[in-house]
Amino acid sequence: MLTLKHLKINSFNENLAYMHRDCIAYKLDDICSLVKIEVHGGMRTIYAFLQIVDDDKVVKPDELALNTEAFEQINLPEGAKVSITLSAPPPSLTSIKRKIAGNILSASEYSAIVSDITNKRYSNMEIAAFLVASGSFMSSPEVLSLTEAMIGEHTIDWTDKNMVVDHHCLGGVPGNKTDIIITAIVAAYGLTMPKTASHSLTSCAGVADTMGVLANVDVDEKKLRQLIEKNNAAIVSYDALDVAAASKIIAAVERQIGIAQHEHIVSSILAIKMAAGVTHLLIDIPVGPKSRIKSSAEAMRLRKLLEFVGDMLSLEIDTVITDGSEPIGNGIGAVLEARDVMKVLKNAPDAPQDLKEKSLFLAGRILEFDPRLRGGQGYNTALEILNSGQALEMMNRIIISQGKAPQPQLGKLTRDITANASGVVDAIDNARITKIGVLAGAAQHAGAGIDLFKKVGDSVHQGEVLYRIHACNSTDFAFANSVVDAYTGYEIATVDE
Amino acid sequence: MLTLKHLKINSFNENLAYMHRDCIAYKLDDICSLVKIEVHGGMRTIYAFLQIVDDDKVVKPDELALNTEAFEQINLPEGAKVSITLSAPPPSLTSIKRKIAGNILSASEYSAIVSDITNKRYSNMEIAAFLVASGSFMSSPEVLSLTEAMIGEHTIDWTDKNMVVDHHCLGGVPGNKTDIIITAIVAAYGLTMPKTASHSLTSCAGVADTMGVLANVDVDEKKLRQLIEKNNAAIVSYDALDVAAASKIIAAVERQIGIAQHEHIVSSILAIKMAAGVTHLLIDIPVGPKSRIKSSAEAMRLRKLLEFVGDMLSLEIDTVITDGSEPIGNGIGAVLEARDVMKVLKNAPDAPQDLKEKSLFLAGRILEFDPRLRGGQGYNTALEILNSGQALEMMNRIIISQGKAPQPQLGKLTRDITANASGVVDAIDNARITKIGVLAGAAQHAGAGIDLFKKVGDSVHQGEVLYRIHACNSTDFAFANSVVDAYTGYEIATVDE
Repeated sequence: MLTLKHLKINSFNENLAYMHRDCIAYKLDDICSLVKIEVHGGMRTIYAFLQIVDDDKVVKPDELALNTEAFEQINLPEGAKVSITLSAPPPSLTSIKRKIAGNILSASEYSAIVSDITNKRYSNMEIAAFLVASGSFMSSPEVLSLTEAMIGEHTIDWTDKNMVVDHHCLGGVPGNKTDIIITAIVAAYGLTMPKTASHSLTSCAGVADTMGVLANVDVDEKKLRQLIEKNNAAIVSYDALDVAAASKIIAAVERQIGIAQHEHIVSSILAIKMAAGVTHLLIDIPVGPKSRIKSSAEAMRLRKLLEFVGDMLSLEIDTVITDGSEPIGNGIGAVLEARDVMKVLKNAPDAPQDLKEKSLFLAGRILEFDPRLRGGQGYNTALEILNSGQALEMMNRIIISQGKAPQPQLGKLTRDITANASGVVDAIDNARITKIGVLAGAAQHAGAGIDLFKKVGDSVHQGEVLYRIHACNSTDFAFANSVVDAYTGYEIATVDE
Repeated sequence: MLTLKHLKINSFNENLAYMHRDCIAYKLDDICSLVKIEVHGGMRTIYAFLQIVDDDKVVKPDELALNTEAFEQINLPEGAKVSITLSAPPPSLTSIKRKIAGNILSASEYSAIVSDITNKRYSNMEIAAFLVASGSFMSSPEVLSLTEAMIGEHTIDWTDKNMVVDHHCLGGVPGNKTDIIITAIVAAYGLTMPKTASHSLTSCAGVADTMGVLANVDVDEKKLRQLIEKNNAAIVSYDALDVAAASKIIAAVERQIGIAQHEHIVSSILAIKMAAGVTHLLIDIPVGPKSRIKSSAEAMRLRKLLEFVGDMLSLEIDTVITDGSEPIGNGIGAVLEARDVMKVLKNAPDAPQDLKEKSLFLAGRILEFDPRLRGGQGYNTALEILNSGQALEMMNRIIISQGKAPQPQLGKLTRDITANASGVVDAIDNARITKIGVLAGAAQHAGAGIDLFKKVGDSVHQGEVLYRIHACNSTDFAFANSVVDAYTGYEIATVDE
């Protein structure tokens, strides 16, 4: 038996166990590869990856230290007695190897893989191997199997509501924070919308990041129920909810490698929404040459896959394919996006019209899920709710109920990017703008981002400001500066005079 | 500037940097994904992955701690001043994503990927993604590009030798340690053979493990040159040599996931042999239904790929496709295999005949590289050298020159597996025997393994011992016992009486 110690190291989702090289429990001299162990203590067994320590001050030979992730999972006090055994490879590893070799996997194989991922029996490395092997190489029934497995055992039950709506955007369009506006409109109308949002994966800000500027988004299921009872709606991060745990682990790996395959997008979205108890889901697929989805044909394939899996799960799905050719709104990055969202809700004269129009269009589609609404009245109903101030009132109630956030500052390091010729903005490259924003720190700092002063179709004079970069620290600022000069992301059609 | 500290933690090839959550150098509150940093100190910059620490005793806010891998790479004393910057994604990550998306990569892209792998700019997770994405999806020119990149900058130059031979077996056949016998014969004949061997990847023992039972195998290039001057040959681990560094990092990831794709097998073998200065290479591809290579067609594809890349690199390659349907020799696991090897070299009456015959056949093929030898005389020449005791004498010289190893004990925990019916051994399942051996600890403990008493074609009586499992500790022993009863790996054809 070894004495448990908490080594307060945070390793980004992986369980690590630290064992002294002379540990009494196991002779490690010959270990030459990453070894998984099982740690047994109390009623629980957890899995962890071994790190070998040559310093008694870090861990003594009769101790076993766990990093913060593993220590929280085993849920025992320091000093508790634990035992360890070498862990056999997870049984589903055979299935992962079968997928690498190009085989079709069965539903029970996906179930076993997801279960082993959820129980932290896989390293991020093995999960990456699974994602790359399965992405683009899954049949539709396999995507269904993976989705069903990822829903997990715990789902939120809203049996007292006969309709629970939500909206999900596939992303790739900077700025595009319609979700928050939609939620306020739909809730003001009276539909139930527990909007579960994510933090940035590869963009400058996720909906949870932008909402996080305005209100607390980390609530548990009990609190979420209270919020829904009160306001019909809430906009919360799904990180704090005990739903679709595997999708969080998979998303963390996808974020680190910077990949997101269609099959995993579909299974992850639908598993989260199913686990959150959603019955009616609107999915927005923006298409643009520099957006995540590049062509209508690709959007159509994705739509079909979403519909196939949704239908098999009895989830009502409405899919809209929208214009993703340029950013939506002016602000990119959590603080700037929150500013735009509030301008729209306040009917401010300088509110970005594209963000407003897209939000109304999508909110209208969700309202049309309601059988009581006459067909075709969705948009106008949404417009009335926005214009009358009911949406703003609802948003303020949502913010106060969730708890107002300590509003972060906009990044103070700024640089204006100007037009090098007079003319008309011909195109804005979403991928480039996202890259510059992410390098400026937008994915990590709410106050970082890009503020667009010109959009496609606007006239510009040489030297006029196209956009402003905001960064929160000098490292990020230098990164953004180091790439922006090579290509600003703006294309200007010069006008013959 | 931060003060450098060595946190004596061994993390299996990955550079880790430990930073306090309140570190003065960087505000980490918002960091929510694995972050790569650059550590600058002295003349050097190294890359490391960040771990966040909440304990002053592990690392103080004004310190930066590095694990053993990173500390050795930066090569500065504790207390030195270092600075850090966030590391931008490695430039070649774009190429890895292009490969995940199914593109053909250029030679310069492979060169950049390998360079970033060698410089530890990638996590094991990202390397796993690259391996899964590229395995089975590379054109022959791409395999050539990857091989050229993996040779690296430093190669061992044997310009004073006009022919440097080596042998490599693709594996999958338990026991098959012909390499050591071949080297002794070839060196006794007078050819130069600096045999670079690897430790077990997925088998019960690599050639370096088996030779390690007899002699020290960890030598540097200078020592290797001395050994070659003295005896014409040496059998050493390539781990201690500064050759093809990327292939070691890649092999570590392959070992951890348990994958090995043809394209990477070819590039890794040929890069190592080119970097080691080999001019003439014999490659043994064993084929068997339960071997690594399952069919003649698959072996042929692999042969063609080896020959294509070899020809482009001006490496003389002779490929033989051999019978890999059952284990070669009786012992499986380093200690037991070393016993068999020495029995053959000593012409012991109970030496395994299959191991002896295969070694003579392969040694003969290598001898035929010598233009002075009359065609067809290879096998007979090898036989004469073995029978006359010259090979044994050479082996003893090699062992003494490399340094005799402290011979490890054979595992003391044993179990005899017996025949459940009388008859004739019809088949032995290589994969199953390997699995049982690896679970018994053979990949990690030299003394663990399996000793075969019956081979295909042997008559057995019910209850007679088929093989004996050896384990070095109770955990491993329990693992092996837990699977062996379900299927022993032996098939017995019962004889009608």
